[in-house]
Amino acid sequence: MPASSYPSTPSATGGTDGGPPLGIAVVGAGYWGPNLVRNLVRSPDWELLAVCDLDPERAREVAGQHDVQVTDSLADVLARDDVDAVAVATPARTHHPIAVEALRAGKHVLVEKPLADGVEAGRAMVELARSQGLVLMADHTYCYTPAVEKIRELVADGALGEILYVDSVRINLGLVQPDVDVFWDLAPHDLSVLDHVLPGGLRPLGVAAQGADPVGAGRPCVGYLSLPLPGGAMAHVHVNWLSPTKIRQMVIGGSERTLVWDDLNPQQRISVYDRGVDLVQQSVDSADRRTASVSYRLGDTWSPALPEREALGAMVHEFAASIREERAPATDGEAGLRVLSVLEAAATSLRARGALVDVAILDRPLEIVR
Amino acid sequence: MPASSYPSTPSATGGTDGGPPLGIAVVGAGYWGPNLVRNLVRSPDWELLAVCDLDPERAREVAGQHDVQVTDSLADVLARDDVDAVAVATPARTHHPIAVEALRAGKHVLVEKPLADGVEAGRAMVELARSQGLVLMADHTYCYTPAVEKIRELVADGALGEILYVDSVRINLGLVQPDVDVFWDLAPHDLSVLDHVLPGGLRPLGVAAQGADPVGAGRPCVGYLSLPLPGGAMAHVHVNWLSPTKIRQMVIGGSERTLVWDDLNPQQRISVYDRGVDLVQQSVDSADRRTASVSYRLGDTWSPALPEREALGAMVHEFAASIREERAPATDGEAGLRVLSVLEAAATSLRARGALVDVAILDRPLEIVR
Amino acid sequence: MPASSYPSTPSATGGTDGGPPLGIAVVGAGYWGPNLVRNLVRSPDWELLAVCDLDPERAREVAGQHDVQVTDSLADVLARDDVDAVAVATPARTHHPIAVEALRAGKHVLVEKPLADGVEAGRAMVELARSQGLVLMADHTYCYTPAVEKIRELVADGALGEILYVDSVRINLGLVQPDVDVFWDLAPHDLSVLDHVLPGGLRPLGVAAQGADPVGAGRPCVGYLSLPLPGGAMAHVHVNWLSPTKIRQMVIGGSERTLVWDDLNPQQRISVYDRGVDLVQQSVDSADRRTASVSYRLGDTWSPALPEREALGAMVHEFAASIREERAPATDGEAGLRVLSVLEAAATSLRARGALVDVAILDRPLEIVR
Amino acid sequence: MPASSYPSTPSATGGTDGGPPLGIAVVGAGYWGPNLVRNLVRSPDWELLAVCDLDPERAREVAGQHDVQVTDSLADVLARDDVDAVAVATPARTHHPIAVEALRAGKHVLVEKPLADGVEAGRAMVELARSQGLVLMADHTYCYTPAVEKIRELVADGALGEILYVDSVRINLGLVQPDVDVFWDLAPHDLSVLDHVLPGGLRPLGVAAQGADPVGAGRPCVGYLSLPLPGGAMAHVHVNWLSPTKIRQMVIGGSERTLVWDDLNPQQRISVYDRGVDLVQQSVDSADRRTASVSYRLGDTWSPALPEREALGAMVHEFAASIREERAPATDGEAGLRVLSVLEAAATSLRARGALVDVAILDRPLEIVR
Repeated sequence: MPASSYPSTPSATGGTDGGPPLGIAVVGAGYWGPNLVRNLVRSPDWELLAVCDLDPERAREVAGQHDVQVTDSLADVLARDDVDAVAVATPARTHHPIAVEALRAGKHVLVEKPLADGVEAGRAMVELARSQGLVLMADHTYCYTPAVEKIRELVADGALGEILYVDSVRINLGLVQPDVDVFWDLAPHDLSVLDHVLPGGLRPLGVAAQGADPVGAGRPCVGYLSLPLPGGAMAHVHVNWLSPTKIRQMVIGGSERTLVWDDLNPQQRISVYDRGVDLVQQSVDSADRRTASVSYRLGDTWSPALPEREALGAMVHEFAASIREERAPATDGEAGLRVLSVLEAAATSLRARGALVDVAILDRPLEIVR
Repeated sequence: MPASSYPSTPSATGGTDGGPPLGIAVVGAGYWGPNLVRNLVRSPDWELLAVCDLDPERAREVAGQHDVQVTDSLADVLARDDVDAVAVATPARTHHPIAVEALRAGKHVLVEKPLADGVEAGRAMVELARSQGLVLMADHTYCYTPAVEKIRELVADGALGEILYVDSVRINLGLVQPDVDVFWDLAPHDLSVLDHVLPGGLRPLGVAAQGADPVGAGRPCVGYLSLPLPGGAMAHVHVNWLSPTKIRQMVIGGSERTLVWDDLNPQQRISVYDRGVDLVQQSVDSADRRTASVSYRLGDTWSPALPEREALGAMVHEFAASIREERAPATDGEAGLRVLSVLEAAATSLRARGALVDVAILDRPLEIVR
Repeated sequence: MPASSYPSTPSATGGTDGGPPLGIAVVGAGYWGPNLVRNLVRSPDWELLAVCDLDPERAREVAGQHDVQVTDSLADVLARDDVDAVAVATPARTHHPIAVEALRAGKHVLVEKPLADGVEAGRAMVELARSQGLVLMADHTYCYTPAVEKIRELVADGALGEILYVDSVRINLGLVQPDVDVFWDLAPHDLSVLDHVLPGGLRPLGVAAQGADPVGAGRPCVGYLSLPLPGGAMAHVHVNWLSPTKIRQMVIGGSERTLVWDDLNPQQRISVYDRGVDLVQQSVDSADRRTASVSYRLGDTWSPALPEREALGAMVHEFAASIREERAPATDGEAGLRVLSVLEAAATSLRARGALVDVAILDRPLEIVR
Repeated sequence: MPASSYPSTPSATGGTDGGPPLGIAVVGAGYWGPNLVRNLVRSPDWELLAVCDLDPERAREVAGQHDVQVTDSLADVLARDDVDAVAVATPARTHHPIAVEALRAGKHVLVEKPLADGVEAGRAMVELARSQGLVLMADHTYCYTPAVEKIRELVADGALGEILYVDSVRINLGLVQPDVDVFWDLAPHDLSVLDHVLPGGLRPLGVAAQGADPVGAGRPCVGYLSLPLPGGAMAHVHVNWLSPTKIRQMVIGGSERTLVWDDLNPQQRISVYDRGVDLVQQSVDSADRRTASVSYRLGDTWSPALPEREALGAMVHEFAASIREERAPATDGEAGLRVLSVLEAAATSLRARGALVDVAILDRPLEIVR
């Protein structure tokens, strides 16, 4: 399914169109589980049936007052006929085995970001879901915020023209993670948004990564990603755990307009500048150099009003809608796989002192697993 | 002379300590010439004696009402005994021949940024000045602003602790230059400031550059520089001609405090955050991975008051003071050469698709030219 | 008890010092009730025993899962021996009868702002509590935020010097209230903060009010209060329901320093400017006019780190602590009465087209009711 | 001539339409004189013929390199036939005698703000100019900035709907003036802009002023003006010499949209919010109170691009154009008189402790002086 057929503003309060609620189990009762439970319980699309965690105490706590099965057995959950889908919120390295077991049991699967802990594992999940005819969805929550929905819409409508560059900054005083570096911790947010708003998804010509570990944490705490895009454009991501000032800003420069998304400014999250550079003339001079004459436009600035709603609510609705309509969700497994591929390429580039490396998965189409 | 012996707050209104004013000629009557003329005329340190340009009409205009020699002959200017120094504000490719001619004539030389159009030319200038016992100074104007003076002082005093990372952004809707790319146009500002405030000057372990020319201008209009520093730190520079929003911001993250310089916020140009990351514990776990336990400090923020004065006035005073005191100026030829070396390494990295390249000039000490 | 003996940073998590929790009932299950219930349940200082509302359905809903008495009978609640205190969150016009009934039953009373719907009613409440030896506390929630705590501390410590002026702005697109004007709806916040931070409390020499009802709402939607203070100082409050931009800012100008509280800037809520005006010389000239020669100081800016905690938690702790320690709470009934007096004087000034009117209650000390 | 016939965007570089330049003399070589001289010399509309000051040394200095008459005799200047107009930049108390002498000599007159030091003097100037058929213009410079031009245009086009309120703040650490209070020093800027943008000019129903002199300067250093407008609207002005933070902001709330002018934000000086309050329903309830049901609109925000040009250049062009076209200038003597009347009423209100006082001059039309 082409991404553009995804309805741009899914209703967070849908479900009336879809008949009885679908049954779902949440697997993993750690940091993110409670958020999933809260939104699933509130949604008319879903009936929460079970919470599963190796630690039954934690599962019990996350289940709270809700009258659901609490268990440490994934098999028991998957054996239930009324469970249509599972939402996986466990550590990344367990995404693959859990998703595979669930898909083999005929369940639709929603997976926390990142899709898996490696491209091969992610690819296998995508291919299995495809062969089984089941929905595999990546929980790229940011993509369901009103701001990102609006950005996607503006880009798709051509309001920005051709994308010339994207500069994304996500820095703050963050917790140095025990098992992942700053790229795997923070960049999935930026990359999933890029994948969501760029026409055709995030398909860079390569990835160059620079990282630093100035505090001796054992892994990069400051990171930069350069992603050359087709047509001469460039995306760049700055992630940083060591900054006392919090910045979450993405600039999308287009040939027609430029958009600035400042996620920490609730009064003006998105600004669209009707300004830009026009290349008036281009010639090859006697010294065999291309020269350009450029003019500038200085136009108005515009900031669209955005509704207030919880992204996670829209996300769980999209999961249900994609199952009912038998289509790919807006952030499907392939989206998750593209993000994963860039992260893995970045890790390779880091080991190669920043050399530009190819993004393997993007070279060839996915094939049905045998 | 070690950089640290440079007085941190040179008075812009000095000269009383130095006897009669020194004689100076301005060579080059283009964009920057008038600013030099204005500040030299106003300074008690200097007596402006001549303005020289191949186009005598322009020279006349820049000389204005001032009673000075106007000429298109550099030789005539250099033949004057009362000319102690020349200030060169011509295109970069002519810096080397003019400076060499002036130095050979026994004149002290001030050169606009960049010092030259290549490292070899710059190195020759530095070595010639050294062998002649003359001052060669780079006009790194930003280094003489009250904000950068204060940053240098805070870093030197240890207020920030060890430098962990520096992130510099200089973007706006700029004129696409006909002969230089965005690195050579904008990055000298960031690099000269880095050279000025980092203890020991800018001596990166390498340079990796990524550039994009999404408008087909024939040269990069968007650029990123990564500069790994000794001790695991990282400096990064983002320059961009295509941004409708103007940002001039440098974040200097230290082990003790972090400083943010926002040059477009006159009411609070410098903020010092008493916040940071403390590495509590470090161990090698069974899987042979270093792990770290980290704690966070959230302290007060402090913004020093800064005086209002023109940087160029302080710069021309420093030029005179260095001549009188027979010492290196705060931004001497070697500072200019370090900046040049990074720019040239960046160009090499660009051709190598972003690979990290060495900064040649920094490998070996300068030697006296024969 | 002098206000200054109030501990400046009450712990929100106290209770260990106070023996067994005190019993409390919440009266009124409207907008504010759930917030009280949530904080009382969470507090080790309190045991929530009952929720009372004329609408038992609402009371049931607010009581939620908690095992407490739900009733529409205030008498039943007051008859319980284990109820030490009641928290009144009903409409303002009912504060007086409910508080009087509770006080007569020997219960300590916490009342939502405003204390009552008129000064006479409020005065009667204060006097009755005093004669009964019971605590009457006004729920001036803002006074328990970390920001206001810090402001109070800085003023008390003399960090600002003498207060010269206070300018408070509280504007946003607000709900036009059916029964109160913008002064009674919004200004209690500003006035209670002023009362909390000004040494000796809010004791203006008079009140002048200007209001406008440009949308024909039947009551002022835009309002300005001028409050001349002893010593030539001035406090001013701007409240506005019609502004699409939200501003919550208070500037406190002192002879030594000036403080700006920007409640919508979580990254820098409080800024202290070490700047000000020094009156160098004062003389009476021949024309019998005082003249002044003034100099300016431009010093650093400083922004204290503030802890993150919920104000309401600190407030309910202070209520318990004041009962246990048999002292006046930080925001006692008299504080509520001072705020009420200013609001009533403002209403009088409005009817007098903005003339400066006296604040009656402040003229004479409270007396024990007979 | 109705103000609305004034062309909304006068070209600062006009003059080609007007034949030969008009002759002008600048009277007063103090603070503002050099700005006038610079703009007059640069304008194709004007030929500067003389600079006149009681102190010929100062006049000489202001005249600079320009080949003009320098004199201390106003009579000599007025005797010249080639002098068509005089620009008066002397202290306010001398505006009346100088303007009267110039008008009687048949010269058009431009006067610095405020028009005069009192309403009667100002009224005499206006009436004399009218009877002589000469242009009398107030130099309300702010009215010629691109921002204020745009505001005037938006208000006139109905983009904001009906004006509901205007809130203007102009505060900073200012020089305590030896002879004027903060109202006369700063408020003319706000009042002249209000006069320029409000349909029909600034015609408040009264003026209430509150001032404070907390530093003992001998005159108000902090001031508030409330100006009830026809139709229930309200304008309010806050001027303050004692604030370490500089704010220059005007909010214009309209029934359709609200405009915020932040003069210290060059990147977004004007923001137009498509948000507001809609009064849905209005009734008289049983208790004889009007009640209103209100709904809110939350729409987009828009910030128009503004050209960069010097306001003073547009102002001197408008002076020439009004003379050539024999029409009132955009900021004519009557505009100056309305501003003056409000200032004088404010002074009266101050003496009456803030009572609302009438603005005398607005009660009756101007009459031709006999």
